[in-house]
Amino acid sequence: MANLNTKNLLRAVSLSAMMTVVACSPGGKTANPDGGTRPSEEAHTPATTMAETSDELILQARDFMEPIPMDAPAIEGVTSTPELVELGQALFFDPRLSATHSISCASCHYPGLGGADNSPFSAGFHGERGGRNAPTVYNAVFNFVQFWDGRAKDLVEQAGGPLVNPVEMASPQAHVTEQILALPGYSPMFAKAFPGETDPVSLENAQKAIAGFEATLITPNAPFDQFLRGDTNALTADQKAGLTLFIDTGCLTCHSGVNLGGTMYQKFGVFSDPGPVYLPPEDKGRGGVTGNAAEDYFFKVPTLRNIVETAPYFHSGSEPDLKRAVAVMAEVQLGQTLTPEEVDQITAFLGSLTGDQPELVIPQLPISDAKSPPPEK
Amino acid sequence: MANLNTKNLLRAVSLSAMMTVVACSPGGKTANPDGGTRPSEEAHTPATTMAETSDELILQARDFMEPIPMDAPAIEGVTSTPELVELGQALFFDPRLSATHSISCASCHYPGLGGADNSPFSAGFHGERGGRNAPTVYNAVFNFVQFWDGRAKDLVEQAGGPLVNPVEMASPQAHVTEQILALPGYSPMFAKAFPGETDPVSLENAQKAIAGFEATLITPNAPFDQFLRGDTNALTADQKAGLTLFIDTGCLTCHSGVNLGGTMYQKFGVFSDPGPVYLPPEDKGRGGVTGNAAEDYFFKVPTLRNIVETAPYFHSGSEPDLKRAVAVMAEVQLGQTLTPEEVDQITAFLGSLTGDQPELVIPQLPISDAKSPPPEK
Repeated sequence: MANLNTKNLLRAVSLSAMMTVVACSPGGKTANPDGGTRPSEEAHTPATTMAETSDELILQARDFMEPIPMDAPAIEGVTSTPELVELGQALFFDPRLSATHSISCASCHYPGLGGADNSPFSAGFHGERGGRNAPTVYNAVFNFVQFWDGRAKDLVEQAGGPLVNPVEMASPQAHVTEQILALPGYSPMFAKAFPGETDPVSLENAQKAIAGFEATLITPNAPFDQFLRGDTNALTADQKAGLTLFIDTGCLTCHSGVNLGGTMYQKFGVFSDPGPVYLPPEDKGRGGVTGNAAEDYFFKVPTLRNIVETAPYFHSGSEPDLKRAVAVMAEVQLGQTLTPEEVDQITAFLGSLTGDQPELVIPQLPISDAKSPPPEK
Repeated sequence: MANLNTKNLLRAVSLSAMMTVVACSPGGKTANPDGGTRPSEEAHTPATTMAETSDELILQARDFMEPIPMDAPAIEGVTSTPELVELGQALFFDPRLSATHSISCASCHYPGLGGADNSPFSAGFHGERGGRNAPTVYNAVFNFVQFWDGRAKDLVEQAGGPLVNPVEMASPQAHVTEQILALPGYSPMFAKAFPGETDPVSLENAQKAIAGFEATLITPNAPFDQFLRGDTNALTADQKAGLTLFIDTGCLTCHSGVNLGGTMYQKFGVFSDPGPVYLPPEDKGRGGVTGNAAEDYFFKVPTLRNIVETAPYFHSGSEPDLKRAVAVMAEVQLGQTLTPEEVDQITAFLGSLTGDQPELVIPQLPISDAKSPPPEK
């Protein structure tokens, strides 16, 4: 019955060892704060046996993956209330937080495009483009760290990044609070979102509110979630075959947990070099943050949730075709060449990861008045 | 009783004569296709007498202005159906119709910011800025022509402009349909929106769908509309005083009809030169379109609907303060210096023009796939 052959088993152990190193790296935290299974501990247990029935497949999948909960999870340090979420939503959609008043969080993390923007690199300040693909905001709350290189420990910290990044929203740090204070409609919203604070309008509170709103952007109820919860008919035969391959080939070694990703860093190119198009040599990923050469080209394993919505793929946004992305991953991460049929089946399984997209009403934003500073030219 | 004094009467007649010229100008159409009162015909009737009661004020206002209807009006040549509006909404919010895939119609005509963007000039392709303030999309369907200079006869024609304008969305004309065709999710939407057409995906149909959606972006039920419909308590005492001044001073000579504007062209600077900040000499407005020097510095009279939401003001976006804009208008258009109290009252009245803002759910857009062309760098 055991179909995790010796080669696969060795690979799993080897991956496990690498992950342990990463989990202990400076700035690292436990790989899976949301309570999901840690593949670094589980990968060398004999859990990976070929399932013969859908019920067995469900049990096997549950060892590694979890459904998205129906309710937004809490964020440490943020007291989520409807008022805080409302404020966060307004800030998330407000282009006046950027230097040019033309780019909001939603510009690159667009709720109508899978929470991302379908561009290799997003266009920021004056059309300049960053060097990494915008990750989806959907389910980002379940990632163990934020940004491809994990340089933000949570959504609160993350929210402050693009605001001041010179090729993104490009606001001088002071501009953000000045701008918010100059839009009189925001002050009462901050007061309600942060009751009891004497000086509630601050960049820190803006970040908390944005994070609190983002935590609501989850996509539960995907066919795969229904399957995990026991509905054996929620996946097609092709999707079940794809899930079996996803488990057996070893994809789930890294793409595990609630997000099928977002629980660890992993090197891009474990078995072979993906080449400079997929892996531009100048972007060292996690190593660029820690200065630890052992972590060069390690990136946060991205979520596979809603993956069909968020082409192009990889941190380099260099692969527009999901099937090719699957084949490349198997090749360079797992040392396996998949047949076209296997690629099709895994891709079919990935299609089962699209959940209910949040239904968001465009917020009416506080209006600019005579005292509001104009945009930078 | 007659309080339209000789000076005002002469002014009204003189304005009326000018408007008649404009109404007959090349490319002009009847000044008020929506059936509202034509001030060019009415201004020299003795309608403008000081109202002594709210009921009289209502009757007087009704001679010149109309409430926004509760339902979206029809557009010539567009068969509005829920499917067409749904398609139009998706296209309106889709940044991939721009060369950089980062600017949609909604970027500059943002539903959360009064249907505009609170910027003097909008940031377009690579942050370049156009030379005129983005007019609100709200109630634009009631304007007799589109753009500040009337170069589009209706919303269908207008929708094609920014898509290909090199400093706005900057798409080569062919890009728009190529892009739409390359997003497979759009084809069935076009087929449903244009039933019976063998080749429904076209730029022309995209423009029709966008226009059909925009026609739904109306803001009925403002306090002023309630007042016009007979609710004498819908306006405050200050707003009633402001409305009386608005009528008596002559503002309504041009700001009339459903939109309190949008029924005619008018010269900016009838009585005196507004100066180069408000009226940059290089922008000749309607004259730039027709080549007729008599129309230099004529612009479409903008709507005053939701005006407190849409700072900064004038085609040049050069006045962030609504009160100063009111004072400047009285000065240069009507030759009158208003007292601060009069400015406050007229501004209070303008505050009664904010109607119900459309509640729009962010549309889920057709997804990009391996064959969808990437953005221009």
